[in-house]
Parts: sequence; C-alpha cells; structure tokens
Amino acid sequence: MPITVVLVEPKYPENIGAAARACANFGVRNLRVVSPRVMDWERILTMATRVGEEVAKDLKVFDSLNDALSDCNYVVGSTARLGAHRKVHKTLREVACDVASYSVNNRVALVFGNEKWGLTNEQLYMCHDVFTIPTEGGSSLNVAQAVVVTLYEVYQAASQVALPKPQVATVEEQELMYSKIKQVCEAVDFVPHNNTVLWMTSIKRLLAKTELTSKEVKIIVGFCRKLLRALNNLKNPNGH
Amino acid sequence: MPITVVLVEPKYPENIGAAARACANFGVRNLRVVSPRVMDWERILTMATRVGEEVAKDLKVFDSLNDALSDCNYVVGSTARLGAHRKVHKTLREVACDVASYSVNNRVALVFGNEKWGLTNEQLYMCHDVFTIPTEGGSSLNVAQAVVVTLYEVYQAASQVALPKPQVATVEEQELMYSKIKQVCEAVDFVPHNNTVLWMTSIKRLLAKTELTSKEVKIIVGFCRKLLRALNNLKNPNGH
Repeated sequence: MPITVVLVEPKYPENIGAAARACANFGVRNLRVVSPRVMDWERILTMATRVGEEVAKDLKVFDSLNDALSDCNYVVGSTARLGAHRKVHKTLREVACDVASYSVNNRVALVFGNEKWGLTNEQLYMCHDVFTIPTEGGSSLNVAQAVVVTLYEVYQAASQVALPKPQVATVEEQELMYSKIKQVCEAVDFVPHNNTVLWMTSIKRLLAKTELTSKEVKIIVGFCRKLLRALNNLKNPNGH
Repeated sequence: MPITVVLVEPKYPENIGAAARACANFGVRNLRVVSPRVMDWERILTMATRVGEEVAKDLKVFDSLNDALSDCNYVVGSTARLGAHRKVHKTLREVACDVASYSVNNRVALVFGNEKWGLTNEQLYMCHDVFTIPTEGGSSLNVAQAVVVTLYEVYQAASQVALPKPQVATVEEQELMYSKIKQVCEAVDFVPHNNTVLWMTSIKRLLAKTELTSKEVKIIVGFCRKLLRALNNLKNPNGH
C-alpha cells in the first residue's frame, strides 16, 4: 500500500523495529522516524526480524514532522487522549475507508506519537484527520501495537475500496496555503491570540474535507495574496 | 469480554507481557499460558506495563492445552500457515462475529501458537474454528501482534452483537463425546489409520457448527455407549 508510517520521537528502538515488521506484514514499504531518542540498529533489527528487515533498513530519519510530511498529501494521526480540545471524533474503523481511498492516488501518512505523551497539539495540527483506537476504560496501547492494529484495519479497508479519492495537494503546498490564510486572518484580527494552533487546526480539518487539489490550493494562495496586498494598501494608502 | 487468551509454548516472556497489555486494552481478564519456555516475571511485567500488570499477575500456567481449555466452551485458533490440510478458510474478520456472539453466554478461548511453528495439527484439533489474519505475501505477524489485532477485531465485533449464541458444552464434556465417537468409528473400522488427528479434526469442525449444548452432548455420548455395547455383543455373542 502506498502508505507512509511516521513515528514521532519514539523512545525505544524496539518499537521502531516492531513497527517495521508490522509495515512489512501489511505491504507498507515506507517508514519514517522523526527525532528518535536512540537509533540502535541492533535493537531495531532484532524486533523487525527478517520479515521487517528491508523496511527497517530503508527507513528515513527526519528532524521535524513537517519535513517528514512535506511530500505527503493526506495525513492522519493516532491519539489515545480524547480531550475536548483534541477534536477527535472518529474511531480507526471510521477513518480506515478514507485512508484506503486516498492511498490509491495519494501518499497517505499515518502518524504515531511518542510512547509517553502521544502527539502534541502542534503535531496534531499537521493532521487532516485524527482517530482513536477504541479500548477498554483508561487503557492504552503501546505505539507498536497501535501501528499494527491500524495497518491491519487499513489493509482490510483497502481490499474494499470502491471509489478512490482524487490526488490532493501535498503537505508542502498546503502549508503555504495555511500560512497565507493565517496571515489574512491576522490582518483582519480574526485569530485568537492565546490559541493559534487549535484555531488553525479547526480551519485545517474543515478545509481537508474539501479534498483540495494542487490547482485549487494555488487559487486560494493567489486569492490570499491579492487580499493581503489590498489590505496593506488600505492601511497605508500612500505606501505604494 | 468473557474471553480467555491462551498462549501455547511461548518462547519469549516479552510476548506474554505484551499479550497481557493487549488483553487489558480490550477488556480481557483471562490469560493462560501452556508450557512456557521461560517464566521470567521481570521481562513479562516490563512489557505488560502498568496497564497489563493485573492481567499478567493473574495469568495461569498449564501443562497441556487440553487442561487449559477444559472449562472453555468455544475454542478458536490462530494460524499463519494455510496448508491444504489445515482447513483454514476464514479470516479474522469472518470469525470475529461468531467469537463475539459466543462470548456472551460462553467462555471463548482464543489460542495462539508458538513463535516459531504456530499451532501443531494436534493443537489445531482442539479448535472449533480456525482463522488467519490476512497479511501481504509470505509475511507473518509476531504472536503478540496477532493477539492485539485479534482482540481489537473481536472488541469491535462485540459492540455489534445482535443475537448471542446459546451456552454450549464445555471442552471437557465435548472431548468425552469425541473420544466415544472415535471409539465407535474405530469399532466399525471407519478411521484412517495414518491420519487420525486430521480425521477427528474434520469431525469436530463439522459438529462445532451445530452448537451442541451439554444436554445434547450427553445424548450423543449415551448413544455411542449403547452402540459400542451392541457392537461388542455382536463380536462376542457369548461374552456377556
């Protein structure tokens, strides 16, 4: 499956190895790791076993989540915590169909957070959709367990894709758009000063539903640029 | 969920611990281990973490799979190998509904084999149904990964149980019945001499579909006893 698994700041090399094995089992070739605490190849390869060895050896390490996602088109994050601000209203099964439908024409990234604190709000901002794996009470899965369960469910859904989603803009193109949208919002004082990330997350989740293509993103960026110039001219009528 | 996870001859204590954590996550309290190679509690509890600590500490160790299953009613085995003789025609998703439906009124056992060779034919004989987790190509999941994926799927199915299955006979009661059936078959020379286990497995899988209750099992046992006595009398007309 043309899916990329992204582990953010994993603490234990064993979890990287176990994730590689899980990837191999469900036909996922791309594993990316953002700022791992330790890259102990012996511990990684022991858990990867021969099944996951190739995926493990081909994994790419990045310094930031943003870099790891720049060539991806659709980003889905996993979280165990369901705070009101996290805007998580979907289960794994509910997002699996979308993930499978996108994966036909897009590079989909599945993002998993650190063992201890999961994904931060800044990391969740990078996600177009977020899901949780339903568990009993206050329990929580290990990150490697979350990876294998997620890939299993997506693999099942992939065998039943009816209508693949169109190719959408890459994260790099989208981020330029969101930065322009943010500038416009700021120019008209429409951004809450205390919680910019959550505010921008809401806007991203809303726009993600429209499945914007590269061309549409460029139109929005152009429109924002025009708007910003016009606003600037109004503020400084003698400035140009 | 009133489900029992049974690990047969696990090699690594880490897998026992990871299975305990998986159980806790999906509301499964009963973990049984048959002839583990090592019972290293430190390694078990490290992988169980605080989430799975209680399940791990409450686990029961057995000398034989038969003993581990005697009070269970419905037994389902996991296998990665799909040899023609293994009679595995179902995926995890296909058996998950049955497992969930049985678990309302029965003690269901989910059986997972050794890391290296999985479940042997003798161990598969103990199963009323067998499933495989679909993976890519020749890959195979680690036993702990198989446990977490299986419990996830059953947990999903359990939330949608429409009609629970009736309580069926225990494995102990059933095994008495199968031994009597085997005796009858042998008495009329109806058992292939070279492959008794596979032959009895076919009979078990067939009868399992009829969801036999304790009472029905007793009727069949009584009938077999009558038959055996009659056959014996025919063979030795002067024997009684």
